[in-house]
Amino acid sequence: MATQEKTPVENAQLKDIISHAKEYGFIFPSSEIYDGLQAVYDYGQMGVELKNNIKNLWWKSMTQLNQNVVGLDAAIFMHPLVWKASGHVDSFNDPMIDNKDSKKRYRADVMIEEKAAQYENEGDVERAKALTAEMGRLLEAEDLNGVRELIIREDIKCPVSGTANWTEVRQFNLMFSTQVGSVAEDASTIYLRPETAQGIFVNFLNVQKTGRMKVPFGIAQIGKAFRNEIVARQFIFRMREFEQMEMQFFVRPGTEMEWYEKWRDTRRKWHEAIGVPTDKLRFHDHDKLAHYANAALDIEFEFPFGFKEVEGIHSRTDFDLTQHQELSRKKLQYFDNDLNEEGKPYGNYVPYVIETSVGADRLFLMVLCSAYTEEEITEGDSTKSRTFLKLHPALAPVKAAILPLTKKDGLPEKATEIFDSLKYDFNMIYEERDSIGKRYTRQDLIGTPFCIAVDHQTLEDNTVTVRDRDTREQVRMPISELHSYINKAVSYRSIFEQLA
Amino acid sequence: MATQEKTPVENAQLKDIISHAKEYGFIFPSSEIYDGLQAVYDYGQMGVELKNNIKNLWWKSMTQLNQNVVGLDAAIFMHPLVWKASGHVDSFNDPMIDNKDSKKRYRADVMIEEKAAQYENEGDVERAKALTAEMGRLLEAEDLNGVRELIIREDIKCPVSGTANWTEVRQFNLMFSTQVGSVAEDASTIYLRPETAQGIFVNFLNVQKTGRMKVPFGIAQIGKAFRNEIVARQFIFRMREFEQMEMQFFVRPGTEMEWYEKWRDTRRKWHEAIGVPTDKLRFHDHDKLAHYANAALDIEFEFPFGFKEVEGIHSRTDFDLTQHQELSRKKLQYFDNDLNEEGKPYGNYVPYVIETSVGADRLFLMVLCSAYTEEEITEGDSTKSRTFLKLHPALAPVKAAILPLTKKDGLPEKATEIFDSLKYDFNMIYEERDSIGKRYTRQDLIGTPFCIAVDHQTLEDNTVTVRDRDTREQVRMPISELHSYINKAVSYRSIFEQLA
Repeated sequence: MATQEKTPVENAQLKDIISHAKEYGFIFPSSEIYDGLQAVYDYGQMGVELKNNIKNLWWKSMTQLNQNVVGLDAAIFMHPLVWKASGHVDSFNDPMIDNKDSKKRYRADVMIEEKAAQYENEGDVERAKALTAEMGRLLEAEDLNGVRELIIREDIKCPVSGTANWTEVRQFNLMFSTQVGSVAEDASTIYLRPETAQGIFVNFLNVQKTGRMKVPFGIAQIGKAFRNEIVARQFIFRMREFEQMEMQFFVRPGTEMEWYEKWRDTRRKWHEAIGVPTDKLRFHDHDKLAHYANAALDIEFEFPFGFKEVEGIHSRTDFDLTQHQELSRKKLQYFDNDLNEEGKPYGNYVPYVIETSVGADRLFLMVLCSAYTEEEITEGDSTKSRTFLKLHPALAPVKAAILPLTKKDGLPEKATEIFDSLKYDFNMIYEERDSIGKRYTRQDLIGTPFCIAVDHQTLEDNTVTVRDRDTREQVRMPISELHSYINKAVSYRSIFEQLA
Repeated sequence: MATQEKTPVENAQLKDIISHAKEYGFIFPSSEIYDGLQAVYDYGQMGVELKNNIKNLWWKSMTQLNQNVVGLDAAIFMHPLVWKASGHVDSFNDPMIDNKDSKKRYRADVMIEEKAAQYENEGDVERAKALTAEMGRLLEAEDLNGVRELIIREDIKCPVSGTANWTEVRQFNLMFSTQVGSVAEDASTIYLRPETAQGIFVNFLNVQKTGRMKVPFGIAQIGKAFRNEIVARQFIFRMREFEQMEMQFFVRPGTEMEWYEKWRDTRRKWHEAIGVPTDKLRFHDHDKLAHYANAALDIEFEFPFGFKEVEGIHSRTDFDLTQHQELSRKKLQYFDNDLNEEGKPYGNYVPYVIETSVGADRLFLMVLCSAYTEEEITEGDSTKSRTFLKLHPALAPVKAAILPLTKKDGLPEKATEIFDSLKYDFNMIYEERDSIGKRYTRQDLIGTPFCIAVDHQTLEDNTVTVRDRDTREQVRMPISELHSYINKAVSYRSIFEQLA
């Protein structure tokens, strides 16, 4: 597949989102005072709340709603043999090529893909397809010299030096390694995990036995993973340090397709339930399967830079457990008492696995892109524009802002009283500076669903006005009703009900 | 200070806790099927829920309850100059010594401390004190040769070879390093962060400006940190990969002592509110301060292996921000408009910092040790013993178990209906196998506060029995009251109220 980058006009929206994310405390470049660290980002005070809400919602959706799914939190550090068994040591590589004049390094496959995309843009779809197919064959055959010849034949040049003075193509392993132990003879090389899934596989029997789990059952995990990407780009879409939310569901062999379909449907419902527009989501069945898979698809979202994967659903067969079984010489089998009771032989088996794997950072970017809204407002004769984040209230970083109309007459005291009565249950902001209009605008920009204004009438009858972020309409309501009003909107319940 | 290791009898309790944690899905050794990875552990299906509850409670206590504290989630990867500024590149070292015969490596300071502890156990407290003091002087003067001579003078021998054939003492940096980028000339060495605090310091101005924060304010963060400990031990107390929960509170210079006391008191209340017995906690003021601190104390818990630090409260002055300011050449100052309005000059300053830093894994171990309870139960003439986890219900991994008395007569269906009506709000277990007594026992062992039994009477009058984990008493109550009954016990509210 050629990468489908959108035109510069649409990429302008990504630029707006990046600067919005920076300006309102969602995402900062890492170590910015030292001019940053490439492809690494920090989540700011608003970003961390949004990300935590996304992670928490996924976690509860997976574990709390499903009797047969439990959690796990395996360490980033694992025994090096884990990555031998998984195939990462031997084949988690990108084909790289250096330009001898500029000394710049590129991914060989990405350069060829870009050439194919150029043909496609020029209208020569056949030539684009043929080129992509040829590259696919060469990579599969591990014919790196052939890949280099293809680059030269296609006259692909270094954008920096402008020459085609290329080195050989070499495979470059994407795992970060480090030394554990002292520098003496007992030090050994370990890796930062490139995926969280293996932490689940090596703990399969621990969880099954100590949790008395019966197949089918799943193990869910959220955690950091690391890949030394050479071409890291598109903001937080592809980072060297990122967070995965993975669930491995262990099933009886032969039943995997029904579970594959079940989880595909559940996950689609989930994305829709958090408010992602249906027309921005699409399913992409893999044309070509990884060696360990017998079915696989991506859930793609239409980012400003095109449809891209946010989640993968994979039927991984018994590949991973079998690999670990062979290398560790420990049996990773399940004794299926039900099969036994049905009088069937072979009650012991290595379960098949359905995986749902989603990038927390990609999900964050998807939610932010979906929520970012610019609208024209006509008031009388004048028109002005407004930017706001139309986040699902359950995901919004701040649930409500408590705003005393003025700084005097006891309004701040009354507002603080309201703040204190709600703060045990909701993350809120108290803000008394600037005009009420400016304060509304600021809450719009961070996606706060409700602005609660405390005015002089509040002192008389214990009512406040509640402004809705999306409609800008205000309703007056008793303070005593605030808790249930906010709770109804921000609780996960409405989302959970859509998953049933 | 000599390490105060407890006698073997009391360490037997740690052994019990380790095996309990393994057997009931709290903590597994990492990569166990490959015979483990030293000093690295995974959190199992119960452990991850308990740890998440602890982290979530800390997070809300810090950010949600305090108008002037916000969160942050900085990446593990940071620019290498961050660790130059913080002092970690130059002086985050342990003094190591190798035995030439056994080829084993040891921490020189730990060996001397153990010798001092031996003197103390033999009753020679004076000699122990003198030895510890002498080592302190040598280390401070960076006289590594003097440390070696002290080891030889004290006739300290390698426990493996039994000889005193020692190499020189060398400093060994505790940071893990890795290469980022490709192996070409643009690759560079970066570190896995050895503490989370620096992610807060380098983002100080980003958060202050985008969040419009006014000093005094705080930034809270939870995240992994990594130290290449040579002597990692005591289960999850000292691991190479661990999780910190840190809050840096920025104050006007000169006001730091009042905030230091305020946070010390708040944090003590927090530990007590989650159910840690007061007599198991103690405060230890640092006799000797780090070069950047003007006040510091540890909150210590009495683990089975003695009183040990779980949290540190430090007054760090303007050390960190000033260091970063100098190295990055970016101003990290706050313009204090209030000072300006008071007519005082020098409205711009580098704030002072009060830090509260707690280890999430240590907190986990503290909570587990506090909760682990063995009791004798006398029923009629017979006495039996029971083990259960007396966890605060707000921290318990599972809030309630729904247990149909039998597998037939429609009881499982009724129990499932109850499960489904509560699952949106509480993490629960449904269990229908084995006798009700066995099922109660299993819930006791993982600390589930409530067991809800569904029996034939339930079908008639919609009531269930609710068994209390700690008292083992059962009360009969309408199904309709379950939600508020459980919610009252498991919500954070009672804990939050104690912090006010």
